[in-house]
Amino acid sequence: MTSDRKVNPVLVEATRGDTRESAHRGAIAVVDAVGKRLVALGDVERPVFPRSAVKLLQAIPLVEVGAADRLELDDEELAIACASHNGEPEHVAVVERMLAKAGLDVSALECGTHWPRLAPVAHALAASGREPDALNNNCSGKHAGFLCVACVLCDRVNLRQYAKNYVAPRHPVMRAVTEVLEAATGVDLAHAPRGIDGCSIPTFAIPLDRLALAFAHVGAGSGLRPGHARAATRLRKAVARHPFMAAGSDRFDTKVMTALGERVYCKVGAEAVFCAAFPERGIGVAIKIDDGNTARAAEVAMAATIEAFVDLDHEEAGLLRGLSELTLRNWKGIEVGALRATGELRDALSHAG
Amino acid sequence: MTSDRKVNPVLVEATRGDTRESAHRGAIAVVDAVGKRLVALGDVERPVFPRSAVKLLQAIPLVEVGAADRLELDDEELAIACASHNGEPEHVAVVERMLAKAGLDVSALECGTHWPRLAPVAHALAASGREPDALNNNCSGKHAGFLCVACVLCDRVNLRQYAKNYVAPRHPVMRAVTEVLEAATGVDLAHAPRGIDGCSIPTFAIPLDRLALAFAHVGAGSGLRPGHARAATRLRKAVARHPFMAAGSDRFDTKVMTALGERVYCKVGAEAVFCAAFPERGIGVAIKIDDGNTARAAEVAMAATIEAFVDLDHEEAGLLRGLSELTLRNWKGIEVGALRATGELRDALSHAG
Repeated sequence: MTSDRKVNPVLVEATRGDTRESAHRGAIAVVDAVGKRLVALGDVERPVFPRSAVKLLQAIPLVEVGAADRLELDDEELAIACASHNGEPEHVAVVERMLAKAGLDVSALECGTHWPRLAPVAHALAASGREPDALNNNCSGKHAGFLCVACVLCDRVNLRQYAKNYVAPRHPVMRAVTEVLEAATGVDLAHAPRGIDGCSIPTFAIPLDRLALAFAHVGAGSGLRPGHARAATRLRKAVARHPFMAAGSDRFDTKVMTALGERVYCKVGAEAVFCAAFPERGIGVAIKIDDGNTARAAEVAMAATIEAFVDLDHEEAGLLRGLSELTLRNWKGIEVGALRATGELRDALSHAG
Repeated sequence: MTSDRKVNPVLVEATRGDTRESAHRGAIAVVDAVGKRLVALGDVERPVFPRSAVKLLQAIPLVEVGAADRLELDDEELAIACASHNGEPEHVAVVERMLAKAGLDVSALECGTHWPRLAPVAHALAASGREPDALNNNCSGKHAGFLCVACVLCDRVNLRQYAKNYVAPRHPVMRAVTEVLEAATGVDLAHAPRGIDGCSIPTFAIPLDRLALAFAHVGAGSGLRPGHARAATRLRKAVARHPFMAAGSDRFDTKVMTALGERVYCKVGAEAVFCAAFPERGIGVAIKIDDGNTARAAEVAMAATIEAFVDLDHEEAGLLRGLSELTLRNWKGIEVGALRATGELRDALSHAG
């Protein structure tokens, strides 16, 4: 029925009654810090745009160039620099505080504006009679981090002038970010497929197994340049201390990292990409769901992966099972089906985990 | 890479820069009223839950049992009985009016409550300081229609008593709805996979080509029982006169039917199902995107199908091309990619259209 050379397997399925209603194909790579593949299901060499899943890597210059120390950024601020947050009042306050430390405000942000995506957060904002601004953008913490980097790099040049168009590929801030991505993944990004991300910065398509490798480095603290490794560890620990800053209310990343602390670092990206580091095991994970359409399948696949590779107590196991095998209910609360990891994914994980 | 016997082709792709970022597999059947397949791409015999895509068929009893005439329902009310609407104030008003004609109000609805899914509509509701009720549910018009059917069927029994649990498979209202689905598709639903829909009524998995056949019948006005055919035509024309009632602001179905009038009847369903009738050609269409995750891919595939089978003037062609090949822009309005029908889908359609 198809001419594709390689068709990824179904990793996640949605059922209604006893019948499969929808199916999500995709690929998953789990590797250790020397690149040994523990799981390689689907085409793990196909380049994918990691989108927001690599925000921790993109925040490494913030620590490495000395901006975090010079501006005395606290762990909440470092955590939100790695976040795709809900734009809740707590997030907005931390981003504003961070910008103020650099002598800037919302007007310096070039990420654009959108309504918070989580409905109750958006409804609360609307009910207060306000409209969102760039602080509510899920990427505003990352961009505040870029501006803090600019604050250090600008030397004696006027910061506002220097930071203008900091999202451009040739701006020193973006060059520093791209250099970290290259070093962490081992991929020459000068020749990688390139696009523009939702928040206007460059995004590069990187083979899935190389993304997993970068997060294995983050988890193991090895395989990165010493400065990058120290920065990655500091950022990872900041997120573990403030998982609410990484995402927010009712979000997968916040729920999982609140429960598991430093044992799991995970980060979702747009178009159904998901990366993670399991520091205790020194391994990294990268998942891409082919259809890219919202995070539901990527989250289920990530939850199943955590179940396979992380030692969980009874309560933690219950939380994760609730995320890898969700009961679907309709508007009256009646159980109508399930969203769950497939047998094929579970098998591949269990043989490796 | 996969053990699936049949893998559906990629019908829709999302690109970023020059690179495919995400891909939606699926199946499409286009048939005429005697069942001749004009397009059969992917597994068109696999049963799929049509969800809301068959609301027009589910509204046939409303006309057939005489409820539309007895309660003097107008075309707006008939249109909203076939709708997945936005829950905008205009929709709420029409559903309320319809319930009042049956001597009922919102408390009789068993569809459940959800916030309007279109963000600006939800934000406006929140900004007004209110919470949604069952009238805002996208299915409230269909359920008001069911209650109008109950109003006629209840004979001398107290209507409120009679209508209680009208969503149950054995309730006379649901039996009437199921009978129409069986007659229109030619499928014995007693043996079909069954589930519970988002609005709590039964939903049956039906082969995709049979769904297309049912809509070919609706379009051609033939192949249905005479009473069903008359009802279907009346409902189809009511929707064509009031396409806003079928969906609402910024919705594909409303945009297309506003532009094309009676030449296209189309209806989206949950989990990326889409059905249509092209009355001028006497043909029906059914599409299921495998991943089921939101309507973006089903809409693109339907737009490409309309382009292939419906004669369009210059302006109409521009509208449809904007729906089958969308420019994707980020939060700053910068063009970042496209969402579009694949060459494989275009080829299959052009050979048939």
